[in-house]
Amino acid sequence: MQRIMVNELNNYINQKVQIKGWVHRIRKLKSITFIIIRDRTGLVQCVANNEEINVSETKLESVAYIIGTVLESKNNLNPFEVSVGKFNIINRSIEELPIEINKEILEVNLDTMLNNRMLSLRHQKVSSIFKIQNIIVEGFREFLNKECFTEISTPKLVEGGAEGGTEVFKVQYFEKQAYLAQSPQFYKQMMVGAGFERVYEIGHVYRAEEHNTNRHLNEYISMDLEMGFIEDVEEIMNLEENLLKFILKKVTKECKKYLEILKAEAPNIEEKIPRIKFSEAIDILKKEYNKTGLDGDMDPEGEKLICKYAKEKLGCDFIFLTHYPRKKRPMYTMPCGELETHSFDLLFRGIEITTGGQRIHEYNMLIDNMKYKGLNPDNYESYTSNFKYGMPPHGGLAIGLERITSRLLEIENVREASLFPRDRTRLIP
Amino acid sequence: MQRIMVNELNNYINQKVQIKGWVHRIRKLKSITFIIIRDRTGLVQCVANNEEINVSETKLESVAYIIGTVLESKNNLNPFEVSVGKFNIINRSIEELPIEINKEILEVNLDTMLNNRMLSLRHQKVSSIFKIQNIIVEGFREFLNKECFTEISTPKLVEGGAEGGTEVFKVQYFEKQAYLAQSPQFYKQMMVGAGFERVYEIGHVYRAEEHNTNRHLNEYISMDLEMGFIEDVEEIMNLEENLLKFILKKVTKECKKYLEILKAEAPNIEEKIPRIKFSEAIDILKKEYNKTGLDGDMDPEGEKLICKYAKEKLGCDFIFLTHYPRKKRPMYTMPCGELETHSFDLLFRGIEITTGGQRIHEYNMLIDNMKYKGLNPDNYESYTSNFKYGMPPHGGLAIGLERITSRLLEIENVREASLFPRDRTRLIP
Repeated sequence: MQRIMVNELNNYINQKVQIKGWVHRIRKLKSITFIIIRDRTGLVQCVANNEEINVSETKLESVAYIIGTVLESKNNLNPFEVSVGKFNIINRSIEELPIEINKEILEVNLDTMLNNRMLSLRHQKVSSIFKIQNIIVEGFREFLNKECFTEISTPKLVEGGAEGGTEVFKVQYFEKQAYLAQSPQFYKQMMVGAGFERVYEIGHVYRAEEHNTNRHLNEYISMDLEMGFIEDVEEIMNLEENLLKFILKKVTKECKKYLEILKAEAPNIEEKIPRIKFSEAIDILKKEYNKTGLDGDMDPEGEKLICKYAKEKLGCDFIFLTHYPRKKRPMYTMPCGELETHSFDLLFRGIEITTGGQRIHEYNMLIDNMKYKGLNPDNYESYTSNFKYGMPPHGGLAIGLERITSRLLEIENVREASLFPRDRTRLIP
Repeated sequence: MQRIMVNELNNYINQKVQIKGWVHRIRKLKSITFIIIRDRTGLVQCVANNEEINVSETKLESVAYIIGTVLESKNNLNPFEVSVGKFNIINRSIEELPIEINKEILEVNLDTMLNNRMLSLRHQKVSSIFKIQNIIVEGFREFLNKECFTEISTPKLVEGGAEGGTEVFKVQYFEKQAYLAQSPQFYKQMMVGAGFERVYEIGHVYRAEEHNTNRHLNEYISMDLEMGFIEDVEEIMNLEENLLKFILKKVTKECKKYLEILKAEAPNIEEKIPRIKFSEAIDILKKEYNKTGLDGDMDPEGEKLICKYAKEKLGCDFIFLTHYPRKKRPMYTMPCGELETHSFDLLFRGIEITTGGQRIHEYNMLIDNMKYKGLNPDNYESYTSNFKYGMPPHGGLAIGLERITSRLLEIENVREASLFPRDRTRLIP
């Protein structure tokens, strides 16, 4: 007998069916017992006659199958229920649940939630986050495929760091020392130069960040793209604007149910996302919020305030900050005059979710800029050599998947938007 | 003026256009010069009048733009050409090319090809491999989405190894020791148990394999899937059969051009893929090929011979070997009697491309099997604890992306099917 999924039972009214799933809830009355069964598509109320079916030994979250008849019925879950003919356990739950996952609100702290990850993910308020995250990823992919981008997958074991920072994880690679990639930057640039012109990657990046904050993960998913033959950095910002509009529309349309469960709303980008210069943002923070001491870089409070400004004064949940100082951007960033760069961050509801910009495409300028940044070009030869053979003008960006997810759903801690987060102290599960 | 891609120029006959790309070839005659321009969509012949346009200083592979008129013309590339009005260099190639990438055949050895990866990828015989690989990945995703699977992304930084082997890379994770994941096995099982039921992941896996053969990579892409509520392992094999049929049809249909360039043909799976027991395969090898000494495991020669047998005697490029010995399979594999398991390998044109099987879903059986395999269950608690709370019967498999690509295209060395391969000695580019 074929298994019928819960969301298809309405096609089987008055028919005998087999359903399989987890025992979500049991409520025993005098003569009947209500058994709520959960499968990947939803919940269904099943009604068993106490004289025929005995569930007194059945622990919640056991895996069961039921053969029964679908009947029309008014209940909280569906316009039908299943009258149980046969109830069998497929795999027994053998211990009391460490967390109460069958209530509407999962009342546990973050650590407990993550320590019991398989169980907490059974809660619809938790799984909904990842259903939405999936649609964000699909939207990213769908939009870029349409724009003739090619998906790539590049190594995470690398000889040197792309960003030149110290926050890298070391790996013993046989006799050599290797590192975990902080970004696919060098590789996506090479793929542009390799003639693919437009590439994207959705993959892990690694930051050996000492900070243990609610905005940092040590392993996270970066949605990266790089585009060749651009005219200027504005083109990259325009692309991201359209990409985000596409993703947000898709989420609004396809995730209605999950957004409702999470009481969240995807913002609408009506017009353009405001673009202001980084230096201008610093001035605004000073003038409007009396916030000073930002020396060429935003801090978390600055990001929150400038987003508040964008929302209240410019009517947008997003804001582009442009022309970041040359001192603060990596060596591959295209300079703009002596002090600034053709680069940007995109902030969303209080946090930076994207860093992007135009890259240097001329060999000599790249070497000079490395020196300006105090780097030794000899250490980057396998990267720089590519620029000798016709690298087109190009630029790109990266969106942090867990960050955009958590801001979209207004989840405080980015860890909640990672299936199995890695932070300063967490390596399991 | 908007850039027009080469594959759209046929819509602009007798019109003025701008094209951008790489200078692929230059051939100077007495009064005119032929310039072949390459962009991501193809090649086009451009004709310049020597009195107006001077390309004598232009090195091959420079990035250029041309403004000119599209004219009907018979040439090897297209039924049109571009009459050059303006020729400008966007970014000059500043050195002689280290490899000759503008010939029909790229005559370099593998190391040289990989050392000059950006350039070798500009050759259409090289890039075609990855265009096809992309369609394999898309096919995998498309088929499984249709079958209600959810894509997941799980950590590659883990506290312990899933396979229990020693071939793991060590990572210094702050004060702790971490490892690079050898497979997403534990995580995909947890996601099945978390109520997603059907999940897949296309991601990196890491094997600190000492062997430096043409079939091994130390970082490769694994296309993993796991499916809950199965009846038996046959269901997993049936799924893979249908999945492969879908992928091969998609490749045949969408990659005609690239298959021709590589002189490759995707096999057709007409009926079922033959399934024989592992022990039977051992007997066949002995009887048919006088191959002995295989103690419970295949060696590369055995794999080649059994594929030869499948092709010649059973008429199929694929063969499933089933019922692998319990001693040779990981502790999570569902036993079948005392000595065998409900597991399989899929071999394709001489090499194993998939390992799969049914997994143990009962807590006590899992603990017992760990002990049988000489493992201490206490070391796996964050994994085993999940089995206390209703794990459905499940199974899954993993397909090595570089392996299926290389066998499909009959490429000898699996490294050629990796954009930036990592092997015993290679960490760059």
